[in-house]
Amino acid sequence: MYELGVVHRTITRTPAHLADALARFGSATVHEAMGRVGLLKPSMRPIYGGAQVSGTAVTVLLHPGDNWMMHVVAEQIRPGDVVVAALSAECSDGFFGDLLATSFQARGARALVIDAGVRDVKALTEMRFPVWSKAISAKGTIKATLGSVNIPVVCAGALVHPGDVIVADDDGVVCVPRAMAEPTLDAATKREANEGEKRAKLAAGVLGLDMYGMREPLAKAGLRYVD
Amino acid sequence: MYELGVVHRTITRTPAHLADALARFGSATVHEAMGRVGLLKPSMRPIYGGAQVSGTAVTVLLHPGDNWMMHVVAEQIRPGDVVVAALSAECSDGFFGDLLATSFQARGARALVIDAGVRDVKALTEMRFPVWSKAISAKGTIKATLGSVNIPVVCAGALVHPGDVIVADDDGVVCVPRAMAEPTLDAATKREANEGEKRAKLAAGVLGLDMYGMREPLAKAGLRYVD
Amino acid sequence: MYELGVVHRTITRTPAHLADALARFGSATVHEAMGRVGLLKPSMRPIYGGAQVSGTAVTVLLHPGDNWMMHVVAEQIRPGDVVVAALSAECSDGFFGDLLATSFQARGARALVIDAGVRDVKALTEMRFPVWSKAISAKGTIKATLGSVNIPVVCAGALVHPGDVIVADDDGVVCVPRAMAEPTLDAATKREANEGEKRAKLAAGVLGLDMYGMREPLAKAGLRYVD
Amino acid sequence: MYELGVVHRTITRTPAHLADALARFGSATVHEAMGRVGLLKPSMRPIYGGAQVSGTAVTVLLHPGDNWMMHVVAEQIRPGDVVVAALSAECSDGFFGDLLATSFQARGARALVIDAGVRDVKALTEMRFPVWSKAISAKGTIKATLGSVNIPVVCAGALVHPGDVIVADDDGVVCVPRAMAEPTLDAATKREANEGEKRAKLAAGVLGLDMYGMREPLAKAGLRYVD
Amino acid sequence: MYELGVVHRTITRTPAHLADALARFGSATVHEAMGRVGLLKPSMRPIYGGAQVSGTAVTVLLHPGDNWMMHVVAEQIRPGDVVVAALSAECSDGFFGDLLATSFQARGARALVIDAGVRDVKALTEMRFPVWSKAISAKGTIKATLGSVNIPVVCAGALVHPGDVIVADDDGVVCVPRAMAEPTLDAATKREANEGEKRAKLAAGVLGLDMYGMREPLAKAGLRYVD
Amino acid sequence: MYELGVVHRTITRTPAHLADALARFGSATVHEAMGRVGLLKPSMRPIYGGAQVSGTAVTVLLHPGDNWMMHVVAEQIRPGDVVVAALSAECSDGFFGDLLATSFQARGARALVIDAGVRDVKALTEMRFPVWSKAISAKGTIKATLGSVNIPVVCAGALVHPGDVIVADDDGVVCVPRAMAEPTLDAATKREANEGEKRAKLAAGVLGLDMYGMREPLAKAGLRYVD
Repeated sequence: MYELGVVHRTITRTPAHLADALARFGSATVHEAMGRVGLLKPSMRPIYGGAQVSGTAVTVLLHPGDNWMMHVVAEQIRPGDVVVAALSAECSDGFFGDLLATSFQARGARALVIDAGVRDVKALTEMRFPVWSKAISAKGTIKATLGSVNIPVVCAGALVHPGDVIVADDDGVVCVPRAMAEPTLDAATKREANEGEKRAKLAAGVLGLDMYGMREPLAKAGLRYVD
Repeated sequence: MYELGVVHRTITRTPAHLADALARFGSATVHEAMGRVGLLKPSMRPIYGGAQVSGTAVTVLLHPGDNWMMHVVAEQIRPGDVVVAALSAECSDGFFGDLLATSFQARGARALVIDAGVRDVKALTEMRFPVWSKAISAKGTIKATLGSVNIPVVCAGALVHPGDVIVADDDGVVCVPRAMAEPTLDAATKREANEGEKRAKLAAGVLGLDMYGMREPLAKAGLRYVD
Repeated sequence: MYELGVVHRTITRTPAHLADALARFGSATVHEAMGRVGLLKPSMRPIYGGAQVSGTAVTVLLHPGDNWMMHVVAEQIRPGDVVVAALSAECSDGFFGDLLATSFQARGARALVIDAGVRDVKALTEMRFPVWSKAISAKGTIKATLGSVNIPVVCAGALVHPGDVIVADDDGVVCVPRAMAEPTLDAATKREANEGEKRAKLAAGVLGLDMYGMREPLAKAGLRYVD
Repeated sequence: MYELGVVHRTITRTPAHLADALARFGSATVHEAMGRVGLLKPSMRPIYGGAQVSGTAVTVLLHPGDNWMMHVVAEQIRPGDVVVAALSAECSDGFFGDLLATSFQARGARALVIDAGVRDVKALTEMRFPVWSKAISAKGTIKATLGSVNIPVVCAGALVHPGDVIVADDDGVVCVPRAMAEPTLDAATKREANEGEKRAKLAAGVLGLDMYGMREPLAKAGLRYVD
Repeated sequence: MYELGVVHRTITRTPAHLADALARFGSATVHEAMGRVGLLKPSMRPIYGGAQVSGTAVTVLLHPGDNWMMHVVAEQIRPGDVVVAALSAECSDGFFGDLLATSFQARGARALVIDAGVRDVKALTEMRFPVWSKAISAKGTIKATLGSVNIPVVCAGALVHPGDVIVADDDGVVCVPRAMAEPTLDAATKREANEGEKRAKLAAGVLGLDMYGMREPLAKAGLRYVD
Repeated sequence: MYELGVVHRTITRTPAHLADALARFGSATVHEAMGRVGLLKPSMRPIYGGAQVSGTAVTVLLHPGDNWMMHVVAEQIRPGDVVVAALSAECSDGFFGDLLATSFQARGARALVIDAGVRDVKALTEMRFPVWSKAISAKGTIKATLGSVNIPVVCAGALVHPGDVIVADDDGVVCVPRAMAEPTLDAATKREANEGEKRAKLAAGVLGLDMYGMREPLAKAGLRYVD
């Protein structure tokens, strides 16, 4: 359940060296390294292609059609943060545009992840302020109702605590809990280490069937080849 | 993030006198009494009409297409529980049918809330074992992958901790956190107290405009009447 | 575009003998009789089966998450009316429950058609107050923003003017413009006149192919039979 | 690819003793007995609850908004058939109502399965003519374009050949290819044989964990119990 | 209700100096300037990014799967128009491709807004003929049924009269009624006037909380800060 | 019904001169040339714009959340093939990424068409390996269950046999059965032949109404012009 009308000013962020290092692996590798949990729904899409970021989550809970708390969360942003905006009920309105993005960027935010809509996407693209959202909508919002800032939120089906690491790219958005950042970074690094070698082999025509030793387990499972 | 492969046998259930008392208010009143939070998505629908229950949550995290953990959670059910099944990714398969329902009912479960599909709905209806799900599907599942039991889960967009109270009826499903059960019960009781009186007035033709004193604020907001 | 903050008290209703007479034909026949226009989207579903009504539209424009105007429209209801509630943007919240239904019923409303959600469906069913909606949701709404009453609205994709006839049953909801009510009633009556005869023939095993003289046009269109 | 404008009058139906015998197992058991293939999408829902049928498929390919071929397929129906209607593109119009149902029923059809909409559902329910469809819509159709009858069709994602067995109930719709009818019936019979015994044990409180011998494989997979 | 089979040749277009001037504000600002009404559903998306247009609406009502009237509307286009195509029922077929676009462009059309699908999007992109649609589909249509041209239509949930102004960009599509064009232009101009100043302040790190004087109303609403 | 656990090594591919020649016409023209059948659902979208390919289908049936068979199908790829991946039930997981794409590309595959999700889309875009899918998701899959290779499959609503031709571009994906490849190529060539002439006329301002001789049939159908 959500605590309403509260702004937590003090949160424990994942150390920057961990939060920053996860960006280059991308959401797919980080998701694997986490054991396939923590992914936001695939309905969360980037407003422009090619952005790849990681950062520490500051969270905000919004109500449908009301973006008042977006101004409140702006003050809590520190350089390196990613704002994660959850909704108390489904809504596709445009909660965020170029003015808020200017403010967020000035405060050092790296991106916005929002389970609703945004607008001014042309300007946001020119500013290179990346947003992952479930909708784009010209429909604006009012400023009338209190939500909360820096409470745990459920965003696009995933639980996000303030200070967790967010990793986002063209494949989607993953949340890495603070306590998992270091082991996830280790696991991601290991996963990636031998990817180059694998890629070279596959490019040379070696089959995954052989490289991964799959022929025997497939045969055991009963796979039959027919000419 | 989810802890995988773990069964928590000891959970702190909301006291039965609180958990049981919430049923009669229904999900809409309880949701109001909570301050309009805690509702699962409206895509969660009952498989038959008219059921209205409350109980303490035992939770299970499932993977798409795999219902192995449903058998594990069965053992953790105590009389008065409602099983809440979350999925690590979207899936509409039928994870639950009449055999599992027989087992759940024998253990004392009052209902199942599952963010996926169920089957044997004719038999479940005859057994009067209520289920709230997002789909009905004849497609069965395998038993191959570990999830977890009695960890906090996100089910249909809502965060549910083991031991929280679940209230479900034809209008939907609400989760009341354990710490909120008592104040919510108080608030719901108060809400309901004067509903009878209001209903009588409205049935007699009194308008909400007058009963709630809305004419002045509407006029202040600028409402104009035109003939 | 919508005129906001206005209540039109005077509307020209379709005469009752026309509005009332359309109910028994049902939405499918009326839709045919209109030339296949005027149907609301099939996402509009009855909250319980078997209701079949017609009546004159009083309209209300609501904003997402705000049902204040439902109390305003209540005062404008006359016996024989059907309230048609449109939204300025998509929303599935529960805008209407048993208290409002008590008030609507007391004022003489026959039904509610709403392009959003409703709640207390068990009570509404027991009261036999029929509602066609696109969702059922326990989530309540606030009372903060002005919409309008008795302006033309777009509800579930169809344009509805105050005073038009609404016909609704298990198949859906149709809007018959006031000026079309009489010719539609005539056309529906004619359509139905020979349905009984057709049904008897078809029940006796006569094929539509023969009864409607379709064999020749099918052959001309190139239909080939293969053994 | 579809052959257009052709009616195949001669099809090889699954023998009636097989087609008829599958009904009582229901779609879930039959789907399991088939090895979890052949299921139509769960968006296919019955227009009323409780119907459970099986029969031999006669197929028809329709174009969006055009039900001309429904009259053509009527002539090809034999007692014990289930009409399976596929669409060449997505459409939710009402292709079928009480007149066609009267004709289908007179010809001996047991049900209609259609990947589109139907109407007159109140009358169809009273006639007890079961339909599984993806929509209900008052919107009628024209009669202008040729499709085909008794060609293989893709209906709601499943491939159906004329003469295959269709099994449908509250859980959904399964297609059993003619060649698979006998082994599927055998497998379904075996599945069901020990269900009664299992149900009794589970009702007595025996856990699936013990009855199915799951404790060891769960432990091997790494499941940990925590108090 | 729609008048079928009629082409209105004479419509009153919003004066060009108003219709043209709205383009540069974009859909979000225009939507705000209108009082947050007139927006088409956010499912209407541009087939390529970056286009931003305004123009006077010529409307066409189409039936699912039939684009005959697209050729009829072409003749009614004047330079500066935007064609607005509504459907009498939902359809995602490709009603429009590069040949029609060549014709529309030759007649002076600035864009197409269609509540259905289009095709040849690669060619349309190369031609720089912008389209806002709800789908892209290679599926073509027939030419068999009459709709109407230059009647009021409901397109993607919004009511559009011939001669209204359409404003469309990456954020969506707004319809400005003719009578509202001048006041909307004034309001949009005022909104934009102080946006530059605001942007500069926000970029310098000033918070919206201070710039908009939100701290006091937030405190009054009960917002609490916790360390 | 699907045959599970089988790999057909020998398939009859459409001759390369036919399969290759269809690419330049694109999916819309090929779909028309086929008589408007064979199109996969419009939910199948390219992961990047501008790709236009044709090739011979090698098919694979996958189970939700399991991409084991993707490695098995890789071995069956020959230069000029397009892999068509169908699912036994709906799933949006990311079944395919840059490593598999490297392998597919090394084997000579021209594209992947998959009725599920893919990931590593940034890398796939840089590699210029085109994919048409219904989703993008960072969520990976396991390798545990047997599907089949080179059996007939239903992919996004269309029936695809191994060896059929797949044509895909920004407008969507079409399957041309092997036996239809030659007549389809002929029909497409003819369609295209006079398109240049038509385009020139339309660009010069000639109306389709005149060029296609539509005025008379429109008048016969009852079209009225009103000033």
